[in-house]
Amino acid sequence: MKASQFFISTLKEAPAEAEIISHQLMMRAGLIKRIGSGIYSYMPIGLRSVRKVEQIVREEMNKAGAMELLMPAVQPAELWQESGRWEQYGPELLRLKDRHNRDFVVGPTHEEVITDLIRRDVKSYKQLPVNMYQIQTKFRDEIRPRFGVMRGREFIMKDAYSFDKDVDGMKASYDKMFNAYTAIFKRLGLNFRAVAADNGSIGGDGSHEFHVIAETGEDDIVYNPNSDYAANIEAAEAVALIAERAAPTQTLTKTHTPSKGKCEDVAEFLGVPLDKNVKSIVLAVDIENQEDDSATQIFLVLLRADHTLNEIKVSKLAGLSNYRMATEAEIATAFNTTPGYIGPVATAQKVTIIADKTVANMSDFICGANEVDYHHVGVNWGRDLPEPDLIADVRNVVAGDPAPDGNGTVGICRGIEVGHVFQLGTKYSEAMKATFLGENGKPQPFVMGCYGIGITRILGAAIEQNFDAKGILWPQSIAPFEVVICPVGADKSEVVREEADKLYHSLIQAGVDVIIDDRGERPGVMFADWELIGVPHRLTIGDRGLKEGLVEYQNRRDTEATKVPVLEIHAHVLAQMSVA
Amino acid sequence: MKASQFFISTLKEAPAEAEIISHQLMMRAGLIKRIGSGIYSYMPIGLRSVRKVEQIVREEMNKAGAMELLMPAVQPAELWQESGRWEQYGPELLRLKDRHNRDFVVGPTHEEVITDLIRRDVKSYKQLPVNMYQIQTKFRDEIRPRFGVMRGREFIMKDAYSFDKDVDGMKASYDKMFNAYTAIFKRLGLNFRAVAADNGSIGGDGSHEFHVIAETGEDDIVYNPNSDYAANIEAAEAVALIAERAAPTQTLTKTHTPSKGKCEDVAEFLGVPLDKNVKSIVLAVDIENQEDDSATQIFLVLLRADHTLNEIKVSKLAGLSNYRMATEAEIATAFNTTPGYIGPVATAQKVTIIADKTVANMSDFICGANEVDYHHVGVNWGRDLPEPDLIADVRNVVAGDPAPDGNGTVGICRGIEVGHVFQLGTKYSEAMKATFLGENGKPQPFVMGCYGIGITRILGAAIEQNFDAKGILWPQSIAPFEVVICPVGADKSEVVREEADKLYHSLIQAGVDVIIDDRGERPGVMFADWELIGVPHRLTIGDRGLKEGLVEYQNRRDTEATKVPVLEIHAHVLAQMSVA
Repeated sequence: MKASQFFISTLKEAPAEAEIISHQLMMRAGLIKRIGSGIYSYMPIGLRSVRKVEQIVREEMNKAGAMELLMPAVQPAELWQESGRWEQYGPELLRLKDRHNRDFVVGPTHEEVITDLIRRDVKSYKQLPVNMYQIQTKFRDEIRPRFGVMRGREFIMKDAYSFDKDVDGMKASYDKMFNAYTAIFKRLGLNFRAVAADNGSIGGDGSHEFHVIAETGEDDIVYNPNSDYAANIEAAEAVALIAERAAPTQTLTKTHTPSKGKCEDVAEFLGVPLDKNVKSIVLAVDIENQEDDSATQIFLVLLRADHTLNEIKVSKLAGLSNYRMATEAEIATAFNTTPGYIGPVATAQKVTIIADKTVANMSDFICGANEVDYHHVGVNWGRDLPEPDLIADVRNVVAGDPAPDGNGTVGICRGIEVGHVFQLGTKYSEAMKATFLGENGKPQPFVMGCYGIGITRILGAAIEQNFDAKGILWPQSIAPFEVVICPVGADKSEVVREEADKLYHSLIQAGVDVIIDDRGERPGVMFADWELIGVPHRLTIGDRGLKEGLVEYQNRRDTEATKVPVLEIHAHVLAQMSVA
Repeated sequence: MKASQFFISTLKEAPAEAEIISHQLMMRAGLIKRIGSGIYSYMPIGLRSVRKVEQIVREEMNKAGAMELLMPAVQPAELWQESGRWEQYGPELLRLKDRHNRDFVVGPTHEEVITDLIRRDVKSYKQLPVNMYQIQTKFRDEIRPRFGVMRGREFIMKDAYSFDKDVDGMKASYDKMFNAYTAIFKRLGLNFRAVAADNGSIGGDGSHEFHVIAETGEDDIVYNPNSDYAANIEAAEAVALIAERAAPTQTLTKTHTPSKGKCEDVAEFLGVPLDKNVKSIVLAVDIENQEDDSATQIFLVLLRADHTLNEIKVSKLAGLSNYRMATEAEIATAFNTTPGYIGPVATAQKVTIIADKTVANMSDFICGANEVDYHHVGVNWGRDLPEPDLIADVRNVVAGDPAPDGNGTVGICRGIEVGHVFQLGTKYSEAMKATFLGENGKPQPFVMGCYGIGITRILGAAIEQNFDAKGILWPQSIAPFEVVICPVGADKSEVVREEADKLYHSLIQAGVDVIIDDRGERPGVMFADWELIGVPHRLTIGDRGLKEGLVEYQNRRDTEATKVPVLEIHAHVLAQMSVA
């Protein structure tokens, strides 16, 4: 490849709209150009990295026995009506009408299309399992597209779908995909974690997200530095921090806490640690009821004061899937007080008390007294109030919590989701009446899994994890070029041209993806461009060095260049590449 | 590749909607599945052929110095408003609104996006020429999608755009693309012709279509079997069939031709050849005129009776771009007669007479006498009526016409358009104010070319040209697999399994794209499937043959199989492949 053929247009400054480093660097390096909000063109250099990611994904998917197909981007609405998502999916679904006024969508995902294909062609359990994938442009009409390719509207995704005859089969297909994803992200050269994720109604090990670890990530990941355990904070189990409830040592005392409506203020005022306090959160669930259509059930959730509520966990408790925060009026009725002084002792009205696992084992704790400016001190379960109606994990994990796998304590890091494997079960096959004849001769719904990788998002995530002040630090496997040769003063020196050309061809012969900068730019411009673009290995060939028989090698991650004898440079580059 | 991993689902009958052979065979072979009107999924086997076409196109484009990029499928309407096509483009343009009610299109083509990209980044003539291409899914909302991938709504296209500083540069870029296309269609193994096409206002050699020759083609192509000359009938030059006008030999005679309103009837009635007759066609052009807004100009076009009008050629004559057929009332006013008896001699009103080149050189001809049931016989230009106001080529070429390149006569065949190269000039750069600084330091519009190949359409066209009663006859370069191995009775015979496996691996080692049919189907089913799918080379390994040390080789285009010694079969297949 010759730089003069490429469309190299780097910028000193990123456009103001680029808020995060990957967006800034991709714009500055000229990898992408903005066409509209959340819509980009991939320029020749950027597309090279996209294609390398695609190829690694494709090879590992094929190796895992998945078959590549290509489904349409524009899909008939009928399929979405069948699955129910035509109604359920929000405005992210780009809907449109064709010239005959028929409804279509620009596909954000393809569960409906693949389920339709499989139900038409797979008639018997003997044809199962089937796993099909595609690499395709999708559209999701984000309300606020930003961060470049990290949250664009149009993006490239690899989406795979497995069809099995039973749950065991689905789990085997899932494991294959889990392993393929692990192989993919290793080959991509990224620091990543497979993270147990919330997966709606299926439970168990039914869903993992693959996260690239980066400080700028949007998701909190709970991980065990001593094991493979990792989970999205939404799904990570928070264990009880107190193993067993201690016997009461204090008497219940209603204490004046004037204007101390926050746990932190109460703790300071009373001179006790924050973790002796219990926080009260009041939730409401509106119950549809034929006789009385305005019935509302009130729940009091109790957390230790230094913990925070995990809304996903709460919503999975029986009867709480549609919970909302209670209004001040509802609180006044149920507790006869105002927020800040609510507590579980002697409520004005019967409420359901849900204690977090840690709170359930607390003794001599402090909580609101259901009277303005008063708290109870020395509260004890069983003595001062009945045992909780429900004990459950309803809080977010914090760093230092014991690991759920029993192996030390967890840390929390931030990650960027780039892949997701998901046990779908029969959600789509039942809705769309997609069945096969089982071994018993009876029709059964396919048991499905789905598996996504954000191809273009990986570019952004890789950069968030790999950059410095000068630009991108591509992992070698997805760099637009592996090696760049910068001839200095080639216009004036025949020998520089010759040596550069010789090296260029010898590296091509060796199968290296090499580009030579034949634009005739000054060294400073060449170096700055290639450092910004992030090519992992650079060779500088100039008259001065050649007089001593030397060429400069610089690894993009090193601060200094190394002088290498001309005769050894070819081998030196290959050696550097093999350890990258 | 193993057949059991693939999703092989062939059909005995094509669905009723499949009207043409390529559509029928692609459906029967399971290469595509219909998702909606003009919208298909490419199944694993079909996608393999798509990818092979793409790869050949990509390699030749790269070789020609074009750079691959990827532009968005969903494009902001603003760009189309700038170019004027938001208004000009009909309902084929799939328009839509996003959640913020902004207008977008699903791109049928990308002139606007690429012109926008280039105007932002290319500032100087020094950066030119630039040629960029993409391989991408497009959407064109055809009013009546049909013929499978031949006229679908969603399809894959390779579109390239060149930007030059001047017309000479554009022509050089165009020639490069013309040559690249020639190389592409040769490598695809298709019988094709580069055909001079009508190209609107640019004229000259500004546009060529690449046609796959097939009887089922929609376009008539005029070609010279003795040279490279070929042109779409819309654009093919029709020369004068009479080199020089002969002197009159007959006197003008008004002749009674009762109820003979057609040239054929007149010729038969008078006992003269049809080519002594002249056909009159009356056209009208409405002229906008500030004083009299209903002015209409009447044109009388004269063709030899055995010729047909070429509407494209007529519309390019000065003042005729908006012509229409004259009404009977207009004919009555201008000629004082009814259709069937119109002629150029003594018209009732002044009309502009356009004679086709051949008619202009006729003498002693026959035409309508502007009186019902009467024709003139022995008409001669200059003597019986003034010379024509305009002599022009306004007819369609017919087979046997002299070739415009002077080398023998032309034939007419039918073709399927699969590629188009086009000199755009400054149409888009001027509309979108896309300029660069020229050598004179002044802003100048880019001079553009555009170059399209219908990737998915090529599959259909290749089949229209290559099929038999059993199925598809893929050219080897784009067959989903090059070789299929069919082991017969593998379930019962260890030696069959071993030999098949050995051959399979030896061919893979040799770089052959081979599939082994491990489905355990009967020979008849295997053969029928692979003949339908169209794999070019088949090897059959069975116990009976192996006892004699023989394996069967069958070329998909041969009627008989050949028995080949086991030891020679590897070399035999490679030899057969090298001549394919």
